[in-house]
Amino acid sequence: MPSFDVLTVLPGLFSGFLTEGVIGRAIKSGKVSVKIHNLRDFTTDKHRVVDDVPYGGGPGMVLKPEPIFRAFDHICEERGKKPHVILTEPWGETFTQEKAVELSKKENILIICGRYEGVDERVKAIVDEEISIGNYVLTGGELPGMVIMDAVIRLMPGVLGCRDSLEADSFSDRGLMGYPNYTRPAEYRGMKVPKVLLSGHHKKIELWRKEKSIERTYLKNSELIKKLLKEKRFSKEEERIVREV
Amino acid sequence: MPSFDVLTVLPGLFSGFLTEGVIGRAIKSGKVSVKIHNLRDFTTDKHRVVDDVPYGGGPGMVLKPEPIFRAFDHICEERGKKPHVILTEPWGETFTQEKAVELSKKENILIICGRYEGVDERVKAIVDEEISIGNYVLTGGELPGMVIMDAVIRLMPGVLGCRDSLEADSFSDRGLMGYPNYTRPAEYRGMKVPKVLLSGHHKKIELWRKEKSIERTYLKNSELIKKLLKEKRFSKEEERIVREV
Repeated sequence: MPSFDVLTVLPGLFSGFLTEGVIGRAIKSGKVSVKIHNLRDFTTDKHRVVDDVPYGGGPGMVLKPEPIFRAFDHICEERGKKPHVILTEPWGETFTQEKAVELSKKENILIICGRYEGVDERVKAIVDEEISIGNYVLTGGELPGMVIMDAVIRLMPGVLGCRDSLEADSFSDRGLMGYPNYTRPAEYRGMKVPKVLLSGHHKKIELWRKEKSIERTYLKNSELIKKLLKEKRFSKEEERIVREV
Repeated sequence: MPSFDVLTVLPGLFSGFLTEGVIGRAIKSGKVSVKIHNLRDFTTDKHRVVDDVPYGGGPGMVLKPEPIFRAFDHICEERGKKPHVILTEPWGETFTQEKAVELSKKENILIICGRYEGVDERVKAIVDEEISIGNYVLTGGELPGMVIMDAVIRLMPGVLGCRDSLEADSFSDRGLMGYPNYTRPAEYRGMKVPKVLLSGHHKKIELWRKEKSIERTYLKNSELIKKLLKEKRFSKEEERIVREV
């Protein structure tokens, strides 16, 4: 069974994540194992101190190396092998869907949740990659840890039921945006569902969805459309739509 | 007091977020109010159904409009005014630190947690902006909701204590990466702290940190360095370092 170990100073933050929704069900049904480790359990002093002031001065506190190395040794022993180690870091490589696919093939992953102030640089001796989830500052690396696990676990075999999944289609494969969705009622507070979707005419519906998807993508990211056009990744019909928008 | 309302089908996912860490403390001490609303509480049928099949066919389920509009009406009435409404959406605008700063000045924010399959398009009539936290697919819009709240709440007055905060310095202001941090012990498992940091020589320490910050940034994002150089946003000393790396 694939496994995640998470090393954090705030294990309580993960309580909802471990029991609710798609991920909660995946853990409950044994599709994946997720174990949260409290960094403080790997300290040896009475006050269970995990951070200290930076050498050379400056603001903020730095996570000490010893508890992290001790936790790493413990997890390696418990799992019987060295996991793939990720450090969540505001200046790490930006997380993408391609990275999620790559990580979904790893057997054991350890996520060390960083803090914005920093982790003692020597910890990077055991880190395989530093990952950031985007260009914004968070209070800690715990939410990024959950985001990474969520994106990776949903790709694991048997995790997504058909109700949850959107089949990889030719739109999303090429990075095109989704088309507008509507469900019942056909009219609500004066707002109607586009007639074509009620027509039952599959060819027309498909064409309308293609138009909307290409139009939306063009408005948000015209570069992508130009790139796909250059690489001849549109069908003839799609190319005609592109020329129109 | 600034407030967040969150509309979700998985309220339990937020349990850790509301009580732990910096955000938990901010809520407890009355710096911000966060209220999680269960979308199912705004259904009127016995089975409390919140989604339905899409008009026109296709995979996945779509969040129905009525419970969302009913919840919106309820929240507007409860808060006495219309909140700023965000829909977490894989195809929305990408969240950034600038957006976090902008949102930290709003008084009332409502986050509607989308689902990957989609939300009935008519809901967008009440939505002010659609936000994505990055180019990856998640099981739902709840983690993005927490990421947005985390980034925004930490910027609110009185939320960050001096232990948590990293003063905005001239590095991060310009998008430069942080320098390596070290704390005690000076030697651990054969790995030593760079001598300069132990020297007590403040000028030298400052110079070393500048070098490391510029070097790291150059390796990850040389375009940014070129841009800052062009815009003359380096000091003379920094420019010399840039020429060297």
